[in-house]
Amino acid sequence: MIQITVIQIDNYGPWTVTPKPRRESDLQALQSRLYSDLNLLFGAHKGLVFYTRFDNLIAITNGIDLITHKRIQENIRNRYPFTISMVIASGETPYEAQKLATETLQEYGSAKDENRREVLDVANELIDGYVQIAHIDINNITSYTDTLSTYDNYLNIKRVQLLLMEELLKHEALLFFVGGDNFMSPCNGMNEEDFLDIFDKVYKKLNFHLKAGIGVGKTAEDASNLADIGLEKIRAREVNKSVCFLKQDFIENPTFKRKICGVE
Amino acid sequence: MIQITVIQIDNYGPWTVTPKPRRESDLQALQSRLYSDLNLLFGAHKGLVFYTRFDNLIAITNGIDLITHKRIQENIRNRYPFTISMVIASGETPYEAQKLATETLQEYGSAKDENRREVLDVANELIDGYVQIAHIDINNITSYTDTLSTYDNYLNIKRVQLLLMEELLKHEALLFFVGGDNFMSPCNGMNEEDFLDIFDKVYKKLNFHLKAGIGVGKTAEDASNLADIGLEKIRAREVNKSVCFLKQDFIENPTFKRKICGVE
Amino acid sequence: MIQITVIQIDNYGPWTVTPKPRRESDLQALQSRLYSDLNLLFGAHKGLVFYTRFDNLIAITNGIDLITHKRIQENIRNRYPFTISMVIASGETPYEAQKLATETLQEYGSAKDENRREVLDVANELIDGYVQIAHIDINNITSYTDTLSTYDNYLNIKRVQLLLMEELLKHEALLFFVGGDNFMSPCNGMNEEDFLDIFDKVYKKLNFHLKAGIGVGKTAEDASNLADIGLEKIRAREVNKSVCFLKQDFIENPTFKRKICGVE
Amino acid sequence: MIQITVIQIDNYGPWTVTPKPRRESDLQALQSRLYSDLNLLFGAHKGLVFYTRFDNLIAITNGIDLITHKRIQENIRNRYPFTISMVIASGETPYEAQKLATETLQEYGSAKDENRREVLDVANELIDGYVQIAHIDINNITSYTDTLSTYDNYLNIKRVQLLLMEELLKHEALLFFVGGDNFMSPCNGMNEEDFLDIFDKVYKKLNFHLKAGIGVGKTAEDASNLADIGLEKIRAREVNKSVCFLKQDFIENPTFKRKICGVE
Repeated sequence: MIQITVIQIDNYGPWTVTPKPRRESDLQALQSRLYSDLNLLFGAHKGLVFYTRFDNLIAITNGIDLITHKRIQENIRNRYPFTISMVIASGETPYEAQKLATETLQEYGSAKDENRREVLDVANELIDGYVQIAHIDINNITSYTDTLSTYDNYLNIKRVQLLLMEELLKHEALLFFVGGDNFMSPCNGMNEEDFLDIFDKVYKKLNFHLKAGIGVGKTAEDASNLADIGLEKIRAREVNKSVCFLKQDFIENPTFKRKICGVE
Repeated sequence: MIQITVIQIDNYGPWTVTPKPRRESDLQALQSRLYSDLNLLFGAHKGLVFYTRFDNLIAITNGIDLITHKRIQENIRNRYPFTISMVIASGETPYEAQKLATETLQEYGSAKDENRREVLDVANELIDGYVQIAHIDINNITSYTDTLSTYDNYLNIKRVQLLLMEELLKHEALLFFVGGDNFMSPCNGMNEEDFLDIFDKVYKKLNFHLKAGIGVGKTAEDASNLADIGLEKIRAREVNKSVCFLKQDFIENPTFKRKICGVE
Repeated sequence: MIQITVIQIDNYGPWTVTPKPRRESDLQALQSRLYSDLNLLFGAHKGLVFYTRFDNLIAITNGIDLITHKRIQENIRNRYPFTISMVIASGETPYEAQKLATETLQEYGSAKDENRREVLDVANELIDGYVQIAHIDINNITSYTDTLSTYDNYLNIKRVQLLLMEELLKHEALLFFVGGDNFMSPCNGMNEEDFLDIFDKVYKKLNFHLKAGIGVGKTAEDASNLADIGLEKIRAREVNKSVCFLKQDFIENPTFKRKICGVE
Repeated sequence: MIQITVIQIDNYGPWTVTPKPRRESDLQALQSRLYSDLNLLFGAHKGLVFYTRFDNLIAITNGIDLITHKRIQENIRNRYPFTISMVIASGETPYEAQKLATETLQEYGSAKDENRREVLDVANELIDGYVQIAHIDINNITSYTDTLSTYDNYLNIKRVQLLLMEELLKHEALLFFVGGDNFMSPCNGMNEEDFLDIFDKVYKKLNFHLKAGIGVGKTAEDASNLADIGLEKIRAREVNKSVCFLKQDFIENPTFKRKICGVE
């Protein structure tokens, strides 16, 4: 079970144009700083936040309790010109969890409801689950960065992103762009073959080779650290395929063993 | 002529994994704060920055001279664990300008070249041109936000984004996501009909109605402010079509007249 | 026992003038942002940081373990152009604790030692103690703000600050300015009479009336929250003297009872 | 004539305790980030801001016009949970300028007046003057940092600061602490002898040797850069006294010549 928190700025759209449209560079600075702060605040407790739409964000929050969420909510209220609502949910898959969380949030009222402020709720329950994250990148991206134009590279990455999103959704996995040629996919329940199949499709359609480190851990940070190590192993050719799966040893659950890239 | 600055973090990829992969929440906080700061710093001179890939950013910088760029470059060096390179170029279209800028940057060496640091150059010339920006959004997005799941909404927006990118590129216009359901498109040379045609295609393919305020001004800020006003006019039904084109009165160039949405 | 962490930027002085003196506004932005981030990061675990000299900071860290310190140290390394060293110490008084921490840090080498990087150590031990904080302010400061010049007000506050520092040190308490007319004093071991005596001296010398809420709690946040409540009680005239002492009920230690301003 | 801007957060005190006292670590993060941002925003135009009381700040703003102030004011409104008021004034001395600015601000109402928001005014006029800044530090501070406790060092610096403030005020110069053992003093009208006399007094009373680079320039940045260079010259023993005075060549005013530390 993965734990997801859906975060929504309260009544943000109307605020951005009241009394008249606010300067775009200020809004960009504001939104990206909120995202930065949320990563510091959730990151302090081993969570990980994705900017998604900037006014609606998705965080992986296994191991983070309700009172910590409340403290983060207060922190934003104390320093920003707006407030945020948050709903936490757990699910077998990331898609299911965020869907549950969203539904509970929607029950409290519209994103534009002036009277809906600082919702904080749990859709089902906070349980001790695990997080599986794939850190995906594009092979030899620098050769493209050094030859194509900045925008053409950007467009290529957006094409890869959308195709990955569509394919991963079939497995109820999510996908987020995290900069450069890097994507992070919360993907509880998927296996190596699933990724190899998807990478095949991407190659056939878009002619880019992908690779992924996949980590499984008790928290988003544990999982993403293992995913990073997996990716480094592929880069260092310590693994001879394009996916490397690493699991954290769980003391509490002796059936979890750290498997290094398929080699016990 | 629009003036574009291509910004690239020097040797960033290797830094993120040296000596071992750095914590993802820290990197997200770092990158988004860089983006925030660049918007404050360029915004102080009426420029506008788009995060693009976060390690490669694109800014509209009409009216911003080389010495100001140098001061911004120093500012980043003085506060961040890395440096940035920047090349400025002008073009009839945004695509052309960013391409020229990228080519000049690439001549200085690879994005991963350890010895290439703090490039600052002008590809062709700094001229007094104008900026045309379209601020595009999706009609009734809140009805979707309030009913679909957070991720499904996000995916829809990514679908609209990619289709807009592909279509706008045919006109050598760029497109960037700026949060919520909002896109900004530097689009010098395009007219209302071009946008109406593209919006038609988006509706036929994805079933979303789009609208756009389009502003023309001496700087990115002037243009985007006018684009915002145009969008507000459509929302307020002061205009009965889905595009509203506003031009800044240029004192220096009396042929520019502020046209309010086609009504002289 | 209060737990104090002494934080020092590694080799900062030389960095600020290499290769030539860096722009002062950038350094001010850098230092104050470091301070801001340290408060977010320690604050996420109920700690509280004071900027002190900006390159040497003092934090109250009861309840924050070594691994959390290490994560904060990595966080700064991952986002700043320098690293920080930290030593934790406990003491009966805040002065004693910071002295012990400093001594251990000094054993590792000079603040300007190029080879001393990211020290992280515990001078004595991490124990379950308590924090006592006084939140002191000046009566009717707004009447001064609204009549004297900005600098004259500032100078008055600096005079009060230095006198408070000298007097509190006799009790091995520390004092930090936290903005406006507000001071925070970690003051384990002091009682109401001690403060009333000091406030008398300040009034006789400088003609300002002071008041203080004093809180005792398991963490810096608990203590400072109670101190704030105490101050509000004085302002609301719920208490008829210039000091209000509040103690957190400690479940673990039934001898601690919340005393409301001397009234059981 | 030096140009000073007095900046005041509107109705800040009441906000910090409404509906109940806000978490201190959040307020510290908020205030220091405001200070950081103001330095970036004014710094983009060669100004320099001092945090002073954090809710009342003093900036040197020669060369920065009213419209730029207005843009900065909007920027803060667009990203912070409060607004700021600003008044600009020019004076023969920094003290006189800040006094004039404060008086005009006070005419608009109290710092706690709920209805006084976003004042922006000019007390007398914006003129082309010059800025004189002294950058003062303490000799051999590292030897103290490496032997005394962190707090004892901090206290010493506060003692030096207050004495400097009292002495400089006799010359209508201001003094601000800028971190480490560094002070910045806007000091239009003072000469080398004045500083040597003050440093003598500080040595006799507190037993610390001080030195200062003094810069004169058209903007705060120009002046502080020259002050930094002066300080480096003293450190490098290129100058054999404890004050080094450097003036920017003013093209517009040929009577200004760059004098290097008294040697024409």
